[in-house]
Parts: sequence; structure tokens; C-alpha cells
Amino acid sequence: MAKKYTIDGNGAVSHIAYAFSDVAAIYPITPSSTMAEYVDEWSAQGLKNLYGQPVSVSEMQSEGGAAGAVHGSLAAGAMTTTYTASQGLLLMIPNMYKIAGELLPTVFHVSARTLATHALSIFGDHSDVMACRQTGFAMLASGSVQEAQDMALIAHLATIKSSVPFLHFFDGFRTSHEVQKIDQISYEDISKLVDWDKVAAFRARALNPEHPRQSGTAQNPDVYFQNREAANPYYLAVPGIVEACMKQVKRLTGRSYRLFDYVGAPDAEDVMIIMGSGAEAAHETVTALNSKGKKYGVLKVRLYRPFAAEAFLKALPKSVRRLSVMDRTKEPGALGDPLYTDVRTALAEAGRSDILVLGGRYGLSSKEFTPTMIKAVFDNSVKPRPKNHFTVGITDDVTNTSLPLGRQYNAAPEGTVACKFYGLGSDGTVGANKNSIKIIGDHTKLYAQAYFAYDSKKSGGLTVSHLRFGRVPIQSTYQIDDADFVACHNPAYVTQYDMVSALKRGGTFLLNCPWEGSELEERLPATMKQALAQKKAKLFIIDAIDLAEKHGMGGRINTIMQAAFFKLAGVIPYAQAEKFMKDYAKKTYGRKGDKVVKANWAVIDGAVAELREVRIPAGWLTASSGAEPMKIEATEYFDKVAKPILRQAGDSLPVSAFDPAGVVPTATTQYEKRGIAVNVPEWQIEHCIQCNQCSMVCPHAVIRPILIESGAQRPEGFETKPAMGKEYAGNDFRIQISPLDCTGCGNCYEVCPAKTKALQMKPLDSQLHQDANWQ
Amino acid sequence: MAKKYTIDGNGAVSHIAYAFSDVAAIYPITPSSTMAEYVDEWSAQGLKNLYGQPVSVSEMQSEGGAAGAVHGSLAAGAMTTTYTASQGLLLMIPNMYKIAGELLPTVFHVSARTLATHALSIFGDHSDVMACRQTGFAMLASGSVQEAQDMALIAHLATIKSSVPFLHFFDGFRTSHEVQKIDQISYEDISKLVDWDKVAAFRARALNPEHPRQSGTAQNPDVYFQNREAANPYYLAVPGIVEACMKQVKRLTGRSYRLFDYVGAPDAEDVMIIMGSGAEAAHETVTALNSKGKKYGVLKVRLYRPFAAEAFLKALPKSVRRLSVMDRTKEPGALGDPLYTDVRTALAEAGRSDILVLGGRYGLSSKEFTPTMIKAVFDNSVKPRPKNHFTVGITDDVTNTSLPLGRQYNAAPEGTVACKFYGLGSDGTVGANKNSIKIIGDHTKLYAQAYFAYDSKKSGGLTVSHLRFGRVPIQSTYQIDDADFVACHNPAYVTQYDMVSALKRGGTFLLNCPWEGSELEERLPATMKQALAQKKAKLFIIDAIDLAEKHGMGGRINTIMQAAFFKLAGVIPYAQAEKFMKDYAKKTYGRKGDKVVKANWAVIDGAVAELREVRIPAGWLTASSGAEPMKIEATEYFDKVAKPILRQAGDSLPVSAFDPAGVVPTATTQYEKRGIAVNVPEWQIEHCIQCNQCSMVCPHAVIRPILIESGAQRPEGFETKPAMGKEYAGNDFRIQISPLDCTGCGNCYEVCPAKTKALQMKPLDSQLHQDANWQ
Repeated sequence: MAKKYTIDGNGAVSHIAYAFSDVAAIYPITPSSTMAEYVDEWSAQGLKNLYGQPVSVSEMQSEGGAAGAVHGSLAAGAMTTTYTASQGLLLMIPNMYKIAGELLPTVFHVSARTLATHALSIFGDHSDVMACRQTGFAMLASGSVQEAQDMALIAHLATIKSSVPFLHFFDGFRTSHEVQKIDQISYEDISKLVDWDKVAAFRARALNPEHPRQSGTAQNPDVYFQNREAANPYYLAVPGIVEACMKQVKRLTGRSYRLFDYVGAPDAEDVMIIMGSGAEAAHETVTALNSKGKKYGVLKVRLYRPFAAEAFLKALPKSVRRLSVMDRTKEPGALGDPLYTDVRTALAEAGRSDILVLGGRYGLSSKEFTPTMIKAVFDNSVKPRPKNHFTVGITDDVTNTSLPLGRQYNAAPEGTVACKFYGLGSDGTVGANKNSIKIIGDHTKLYAQAYFAYDSKKSGGLTVSHLRFGRVPIQSTYQIDDADFVACHNPAYVTQYDMVSALKRGGTFLLNCPWEGSELEERLPATMKQALAQKKAKLFIIDAIDLAEKHGMGGRINTIMQAAFFKLAGVIPYAQAEKFMKDYAKKTYGRKGDKVVKANWAVIDGAVAELREVRIPAGWLTASSGAEPMKIEATEYFDKVAKPILRQAGDSLPVSAFDPAGVVPTATTQYEKRGIAVNVPEWQIEHCIQCNQCSMVCPHAVIRPILIESGAQRPEGFETKPAMGKEYAGNDFRIQISPLDCTGCGNCYEVCPAKTKALQMKPLDSQLHQDANWQ
Repeated sequence: MAKKYTIDGNGAVSHIAYAFSDVAAIYPITPSSTMAEYVDEWSAQGLKNLYGQPVSVSEMQSEGGAAGAVHGSLAAGAMTTTYTASQGLLLMIPNMYKIAGELLPTVFHVSARTLATHALSIFGDHSDVMACRQTGFAMLASGSVQEAQDMALIAHLATIKSSVPFLHFFDGFRTSHEVQKIDQISYEDISKLVDWDKVAAFRARALNPEHPRQSGTAQNPDVYFQNREAANPYYLAVPGIVEACMKQVKRLTGRSYRLFDYVGAPDAEDVMIIMGSGAEAAHETVTALNSKGKKYGVLKVRLYRPFAAEAFLKALPKSVRRLSVMDRTKEPGALGDPLYTDVRTALAEAGRSDILVLGGRYGLSSKEFTPTMIKAVFDNSVKPRPKNHFTVGITDDVTNTSLPLGRQYNAAPEGTVACKFYGLGSDGTVGANKNSIKIIGDHTKLYAQAYFAYDSKKSGGLTVSHLRFGRVPIQSTYQIDDADFVACHNPAYVTQYDMVSALKRGGTFLLNCPWEGSELEERLPATMKQALAQKKAKLFIIDAIDLAEKHGMGGRINTIMQAAFFKLAGVIPYAQAEKFMKDYAKKTYGRKGDKVVKANWAVIDGAVAELREVRIPAGWLTASSGAEPMKIEATEYFDKVAKPILRQAGDSLPVSAFDPAGVVPTATTQYEKRGIAVNVPEWQIEHCIQCNQCSMVCPHAVIRPILIESGAQRPEGFETKPAMGKEYAGNDFRIQISPLDCTGCGNCYEVCPAKTKALQMKPLDSQLHQDANWQ
């Protein structure tokens, strides 16, 4: 029987790829890397593939090399796979033409990622896979973690049967890194689906000195064209083969897939055509809209190449009058993006000029694609003069392509619980959330989904965890903008980010802070207090840093915040959660001794005890005073572009905010006063031996030695000592520290060679006077 | 004023690229290599570009490196170009996205070449450039050598004005290596067309520490999408800018180009849409067909990206009812090839469902695209049930895509003289023909065109030169199949190739051979004699080998055959030709002394004197005897596939002849008895010291030492001597030679260390007994 487990998309795909691979030739690139890591790890553990052996994993020197190795390995009769994305996939293109031309069965699993253009992006869209649509690879798209597993299986079954190589893709980060509870298919079950005669035939046609044959010759104008057409029957057979494999998988799992899957109203006049994770959100949204009387539909494209026009036309409801074709890529200079031109061609060939076709672009570089946007697409579709070649999800104030968005639309089914956590990179928040979702996923019947958003600073940066739980499979392939529960794990965030606007009316806000009473009033910004009051939010506080320190756990607050989450969010009974958390602590820290386990248990208990609800005063509704974000004199670019980005409000920037070539000014980090350190160095003037080693070792240029003429004017409190060395006679010396740029790493303190350390680590708050205008 | 000169496509393009380049970052790949070579040579000679300096040429380690260097050099403010094709272009794709994304002006000049799929091909089609259509580069297509120069210029002018990078492409070999007489545009004239303000603006935005700015940053989901749309206005402006540049060029040269150029009947109902060199043949064919009462048209696509739908629709005649869209690429699994889907989309968006659209594929890997095929496309178009997704130029007996061809159709204008030469690789035929076309091109008002076809064996292989001369520009972008004059420079070819079927009725056939009278009768195959008689051909013979030897010129017969061509073909008065040939000989060989010059002059005179016309006997019409090609027992594959290819009849092979994955049997060269050597080694048994060095040094495995038991049975005439060495006692020794595999290099003779050489070079004919069945 199918086993349920909680896994990310890359893991679900690797499970299948591993089964079918003799060899994996890899070169890691975000967001595909973990596929290679899973396979490498399982291989090292000796896990056996369908052929009874561990996969042989070879890391090459680039993706070009990986694709070449795949080609060679296939020619030698080994079932071979690779995993890549973005520029990595581009480097594979030459070999893809060869592999397809030689009809070698393989699956490239691609966590689709944006290509670097005006800027690089590690996030997801279809620009990379669309750059391969002409190579002769079949292309199969997945929209969710469950689908990623199932389509991976279908791709492998179909490539063996058809001899046509497959590119199986799913959205980078959104699907590759989303954690979901899914049905796992066992290798035993998979083995029953494989066409073993075709496997044997593939092995028999390997290059072999015992029965030599030549492959990859050079051909001239006289014969190349004819030979190129000789493969036509193989491509003509692919749609039928994929359909048959989909039926096999349905018989095994009950999950039904077709080349094009239509969902929504059977009599829909307005249909969205889409592939990848956006199809899930569209499905969810159309379900919600139709339940309120609309008649919309979504056509999910599974097999994109070969494009089976007949199946496509058959899948559309007879009633359709308007199509919105959604492309997650941009091809400047083309009449339309690829799926749009394909749909145009299929309809034109079928003489269906009665259907209005609209093309839209969405989700570049993992730009959110939410029910609000999906609704906007349908709102456009039904207009008397709908916009074609539109964008959705941005404000295009330059060429006016964007659709206006209506009020925020929530499409998640009743009963789904959405929880959002603001953490500091490396503070353990993400790890604790992964643990929470495993606890809930593995021990309850609830479906669970987790997605983790990081800013580019990683360690010391912002992490936002998005967790959903529900009784039905979760199709919300977008970040949470309507949370039942929001937790802020870092008190400094209250003035930096708007964390409340994504909270549901009546939702729960948990704040880790040392403040109570009037200090809390003072420390929260007015806008936040207003928002909490307007939403009739439940506000809870906990001083997790103090609690952790009390129990000797240093700055590690993750277990405390996890316990508080379980206590407040009510996803499962707290007693049950407590048991699992404690079991987990024992399992994880058991080796470190009973004391560590007990400390963990103590903070779990402490968390529940220390949790305090704050009754929101009526006055907050109109609060006009409170903490304010630091004001820094900066450039216009910084204020208008960089600052909203740093505040997590970059989505609101319009097209006109950007240089068309992606050019940005330099030297803007000087205005970004992050203030993320808990403790920062204070200069101990009397102990300093002026060696300047602290300055050399600081990775953020926070510490700078200063020479100043002894007679020169200086600001108040600007302490100095006479500079050492004959050549500096007549000068004074000072170590200038910029606490708000400090990350608190303590390297300066460690390196100081003075007998009594000339730097002492002190709480950030106490050191802010060091900044001022002296830098 | 414009200067006329005779140049190949690569040269014409290099002339422009050089003008606009500060830097050329290159990595040579066929058929683009000569562009880099031209530029490198001119740079070494100190030729100054538009900016007053020689181009700085950097050869990188691969095309990936070349594209990276272009990107970096552009970012640093240097106008930079590169030249590439095929897989080389594929390696540039990642950088192309970056260059376009950063709006850096450059032109990549691409001699479009087939991508390696089931087999590699060095020849031309659009599969490489079509793999780049999504990168954000503008794409401009040329169809002839003159256009290649003009479009190169337009591309450079437009990229400077628009900041959008251009890919300028023209057909590999057909245009890159075709020699034509064209109008050259001087650098002085070019300079007047350049938007120098934009050049200055480009240089000003270079990365520079004096005014630093950042390019190529990393962006996240919040802002990447917005920034990607910010470049829209640049792309929207491109068509207008290209049109304006075309007008500039028209004002300068009188040659008019538009984004889409329509030619043919103003009231055509059937129009072919095509780009690249095929458009020239189509233009020529439609002109011919319309002069006989048809009403056809051709729409030549110049600017392929951005695809200017409005200009496209406007360029079509109002009367159009049926379009045949011709793609020179194959994208397996797509609904149609790229130009076809673009046209479908443009028409569908304009609501033109009244126009029937047919898609056809032609010319993969430089497959010929002739007036006969073009006529077949129109014949299909006017049928009541025309075929869509057809191929033309092949016989597809597998998926039945191919159009039937009618009788051979000649579309060349009256008065064009077509001459075809069969030479042996390295015999000087191609060089002499290049000289002939220069003589005619540079010294007369005639237009001239030359194309040289080589087989893959190069030195020692077959060369076929195609020369055309005429009073109007030559649009015949296909090999000559209706020649006024055919010359066979190698007597051995008479049994190997059908050289007469491409001869016009009443045309002239010149044969270099030592045969006369009854020997000639005997040596010519019956089919050849019949064909010559049926065509009422004029047959001339000359013993050029004998004549060359008499004048101490060894095997160098090229000057003799050139003189005979000038004498017989009558393109220009012979006296004039004689003068130019003699002048050229003096110029070329002057340094080697008067004697060499005189010998050259003597063979020119001798050629005319020795040329003899053979009156074709009436009996040849029904000739049933004559020479026959050697019959060799071979495999079915060799007989059915390899043999027609070797006979230059590979075009006739149907799709079913080929393995869909491009697999072929090995060890087939053993059946390919080429017999191309003039002299081959004969073993001198009495002098042989059995060292086997001759065998080691032979590059074609022609010479093999044999040991045989002294008592064993052996064929008649199988001479041996006792083997040397105690360990071989009781064995006999023999050097076995395979004369038909020998290329006559003489290495074996040179290496033989015996006091009296144990190998002597003897005429091939006298040594054929060595082959037989003894190998």
C-alpha cells in the first residue's frame, strides 16, 4: 500500500529518478541541487534501484560535462539521469539535441528556474525549460509535490517505452522546495509498471565492441534531411504512450492524469490554460469562484512536447469562448510567449477562430501567483474589451501591460490553517518548522504544506516560514497572505516589516520580546498597534531569549517558539504535540546526555508557562505614537527602491522604478542599517595597543582605525588617545565602530591580542551611540 | 562611389563587422571561420575600423568563452562582435540572455548551420539560430552575398540606435561560401550613416571606476519581473529603427529593403513566406512562373525578431488566399516549426482566418532547394486539398510528409551561363575556378556566382564547382542542374558519377582523359554515351595529364583545364581570357623565375592546341557496351545506402533507408574501392628486407605484411619469400598491397630502408591485379 510521507518536491522526484537510474551524472545548481544530494546520499547508503544496484553518481566539472556524461552513459547502455536548472540546463542544450537525435531514453528532472538576463535570479519560472522546447525532448510538467513524483514516474515509464528523452519540470523553489505530505510509490510497485522488454532492448543497443555499430556520424546535404525525418514515428507515438503510462499510474494510485487535465465548470466559457505550480492555485481559485456561482475552468498542460493538439482540443469544454493562456516566461521580440503561440496554432489549425485567445505573463522569478491575481485574469477575460499580452502580479506603468488587481481574494478551502513565522537566518526557526510539519504530517491525517522564503543575506537575514494544514490536499501554491497565526521570532522586526497585514481577522499574533506593559506600547509602532486592533487579533508575547538563557541554551529559541506555536495555533491537541516534541528532543540530543535533553524539555514546559496574552487596548485602534524605524539620510534610489525591498515590500514597486538594463547605483549598503547583532563590540580605549587587528579581521568593515590631528575639532564624546609611533606624532588615534552594521560574530574580540581585551561585546542597544555621524 | 568586387558571403559580412568593431572575440567553427580569419588578417595588416584603429582580435578557448568575452568587452564600452554557427552558437546562449538583458549593442554574425542531432552536419540550415529566438536578440536574415553585406550594415546601425543586440544570419555554405560579384560599401560612406551620439552614449555607460555603477546583480521574486518588463520600450522601438536604417542604406546604395519584402504578382493568391537564401531561389522561380502566366508571390522575412506583425500583414498582397510558410529547421514535437507558428499567431491575432496556412520544411543540412521544389510548393498550395506540415526535397516514405516533384524546372533567366566542374580534392580545380570567376567578375560587366561542393574526404575526394555568369544579378541559390558546360577533370569519374544528366541539351562536355577513338568508346560507360548523344552534347577531350607532364608541371592540370574552359564556354572572348590568365601566372609565379612563368604560358597555349572535339557517333544513342563501375561484393547496407551516397546520388535515398537514431554499420570502407591514386606501390620481392616499415607508415592500411605456412595452398600469382627470423621458420612472407585503397602519397616508398627500394610507384592500372581476392 502507498505510504504517506512528508517531503519536498526535489525529494519526491529523486525517489523516482533513483529507482530508474544506473548512473546519475550531476553538477549541482540551485534549486535542483538537493535532487543530486538525495541521490548521492541514498547511493552512499547502498539503496538499491530497480535493477538491484545502488546508483553510480558522478559529479562532473559543469552542466555541459554532466550532459555529455549522460549522453555517453546512455550510449553505453546505462539508464542515466541528471537534475538541473537555469543556466545549467542551457549548457546541456547541445547534448540534448544529440540525445534526442539518437533516440536515447532518459529523463532530465528540472526544477525550472529563471535565466539570468538584466539580473540573475535563483528563483523559479519557465524561461529555462522553454529554451529547450526545440531540442526534441518530450516535456512533462508537474504542478505540486505529489504530481512531481507521479509525473517523474510517468516520464521514466514513457521514455523507456518511446525511446524519446523527457524533460520533466516543476517550478523551482515553489515545488522543488515546498514540503508536502504525499503518497509515496514503492519500488516494488514501480517495478511492475516498467516495460522490461524495452529496458532489455535499450541495453542491447548499447555500443559494444562485441557487436560494433556506429552512432553520431557526420552526414552531408544529400542524406541528413531524410534521416532527420526518420524519427517522426517515434514522436507521433509519444502522446499515446504517455497516456498509457498515466493510466498505469492511475490503476496503481487512483490518481488520474491526462495529457491535458480540465478542471472547473463543465460549461465554462472562460478557461485559463496553464502549466506548473500556477495550475494548482488556479484550480483552487476556480473551485472557490465557481462555488460562488462563476463558471470558470482551468486546463492544466501536462505533456507540453509533443504538443498533442487533438487531445488539447478534446480537453476543452464545448462551451469555451475565451481562453487566457498563461506563460511563465518572457521572450522579448516574440509575438507571444510559447504556450500562447502553441495554443494559437492549435486553434487556428482546427479552424476555431470562434474562441478569443488572450496571452498573459505571470510569475517570473517566482513572483507570487495568488487567487487575487487569478481572479484578475478571469475578470479581464469577461470584459468587453479584454487586454491581450497582459502581465499579472506587477504594476507596469511603462508599457501598461499589467492587469489591475481587485481586493485580496482568499481561495483556500474552509478549515485550512495557515501559519506564518518571521525568523532570523540561522536562528533555528526554519528547522523547528520543518520538525513541526513532520510531526503533524507523520502523526495525523492532516495534509501539510511548508514553504520557506529566505532573503539573500541567508545567515543573519530574514526567513519567513509558511505552514498550512488541512483535511484536503493543499493547492495554495503561493505564500500565505491570510494567516490564522503569525509569529515574530525577532523583536527587532516590529519596526522593520509589516507582519500584520497578512493576518486574518481574529487571528493570533505571537511576538518574541522582552517587553511588557508600557514598554510594549512604546516599542510597537503605531501602524502595527492599529492593525492588530482593527483585525481584532489575539496578541501573545513571550520572552524566549530570556527563557533560553535561563536554561543554558544561549540564543537558541527555536524549541521555545515551536512549543508556543503548538500551544496557540491549535492544529493538533497540545498534549500530543508536547509528546512528539519531547520525543524528538530525546532522539536528537540523547547522545549529548540527559542534561541537554532535560534542558530542552524544560524550555518546552517553560514556553507554555511563560506565554502571556496581551489584551489589546481599545486605544490601539487609533494609536498615533510608538516605535519608528530608524531614519537615515540616503539617496533617492535608496529611499525609493532599496528601502521598500529591504522592508519586504519590493512587490509593490512599479516597472518604472527600474533601469531597463538592470543597472543600479553602487555603495548603497551604507544606508542599510540592519542592527541584527545581539551583542556588538565596545572599544576599551585604555587597553588598546593600536595593532588594528580587529579592523583587519572584521568581515563587514564595521571596525575602522582613525588618525586625527591632535588639534582638530571633533564631535562631543569622540574619545581618542595619542597615536603610537614616531611617524604619527601629533596625531590622535581612535577605533570607530559601526554597531548597526555589525553581525555580532565576535571575530574582533577573539583576535584582540591585548593583555586585557580592548574590545568587549555589549548589547546592541547600549552601543548605538557609537554610530551617530562619526563614520 | 560603390566599388564592385567578387567576394564570398563571409567576406562581405566581415567587411562590415570589421568597420564597427573595437574588439572581436572569436572561436572558429565551420562555416563561420573565415569571418574571423578575414577580420584577423585585416587587423594584422593594420586596416582601420570606423573608430580609426585596427580591430583587437581575441581567440578564446571555446564559443562559450568568446560569448563571455563579448559580454565583458561590451560592458567595458568596446564595440564588440563575434562570428559563429551551430553548436558554437548554442554555447553562446547563456551569455546572449545576459547581453540582451543588459541592453548591450552588438551583432553576432551567424553563418547558420545544422545542429548535430542523429548525425553531425557542417552544412546549413536554421536550427542553430532558431535555438536562439527566445534570448532577446533581434534577428535579421540575409539571402544572398549582397544582402549579407547590406543586412550586416543595417544590423550594426540598428543595434547602435536601439541598444538591442542583433543576431544577423545567412545560410551556412550557401551564402557564407558562395562567391558573388557585389557592390562594396566604403567605410567612408558607412561612417556617415552611424548615429555617433549613440556610440558616445554607449561608451559613456561603460563600467568605469571613475563613475561606478553596478550591472548584473541578483534579484528576487519581489522585483525581477518588474525589471524584466522595463525593457519593453526598447523592443517596441526596434522595427521602426530597422526600417529607418534600411532607408538610410537605400539612400546610399539604391537597394531597397523592408522588414518584410514582397515580390511577385501584386494580385497573387498563393504566397510563399521564407527567409534566408531560399528566398532568392523562390524569387527567381516565381519570376519565371509568373512570366508564364502564374500569379504567385514570395514574402521574404528580413527582421524575424522582433516579429513586426503589422508590417507583416501590410506586406502581404490583399489578394492572398493561401500561404506556404517555409521553415529550414525541425523541432520534433512542436505543432509546427517556428516561422509557421509565428505566421499562424500573427494571422490569428489579426482575425485573418480567411487565409489558408500551410507549413513546409525544406533544406535541412543544405539540402538543395531548387525551382523544381519551389514549384512543387505552389503546386501543393493550389490543390483542393493541399498537404500541411509537408517536407520538400526528399522522399518521405515513412510518414508521407513529402511533396511530389514535377519535372525538373529551370528558372534561371535567359542568358545566364552555368558551368560545372568535377575535380579531385587538391588537384587545383577549385583554385582555378576561383581565379576564373575573379577574372570575369573583376574585368567584365557580367555578374558572377561560384559555389564549391566538396565531399567529406577533402584531399583526394570529389570537388564539384558551380559557376554562373549573367547580365543580371544571380539568384540561383542552388547547385547547377542544367549546365551549359560540364568539365570532368579526372578520367576515373566517368564510371563513378553521373555527370551528364545535369548538362543542358546542346551543352558542352569537356573530359580530361588520355583516351581517343576506340579506347574512348571502350572507356566511357554506355549510359554516359547514350546521355551525351540524347542531349546532342558537344564533347571535347584533352589529355591534360600528359600535357602537364610534358611541360614539367607534374600532376598540376588546373591551368590547362582553365584555359580549355575559357576556350569552350565562351563566357568572354578567349583572347581576353588568355591575357588575364597569363598576367595572373606572371603575377603568381614571377618570383619563381621566368622559366616557371613560361611553362605556365606554354600549357595555356598547349591546352588550346590539344583540345579536340569528338563527333558523337549516331550509335551512341543506343550504346549498350562500355566501361562499367567495379562490382564489389558488399553488404546490403553498403549496396543500398553507402553506394548511392558515394556515387553522389544520396539525394535519391528515401527516408526509410535510414535508421531513425542515425545508427550505421561499421567496417564499410572495405567495400569502397576508390582507386584515386595516380601511382601506387608495387612490391619488389627481391629487395624486401621484411622490416614492415612500409606497413607502419601507410595512413590508409593499404600495405599489410602477411605470414603464411610454407606448405599452405595459395592463389595463383601469390608470390612469397621465406620469412626471416628463427621464430618464423616454416613460414613464408609477403607484402600485400591494396591499390584501390591507396591515395598515392608515396610514404611507403619514402620510408623503405632497403638498399634498393623494395617498393616502386607504378600507374594504378598496371597494379590492379594486386587487389583481387587476396586481401
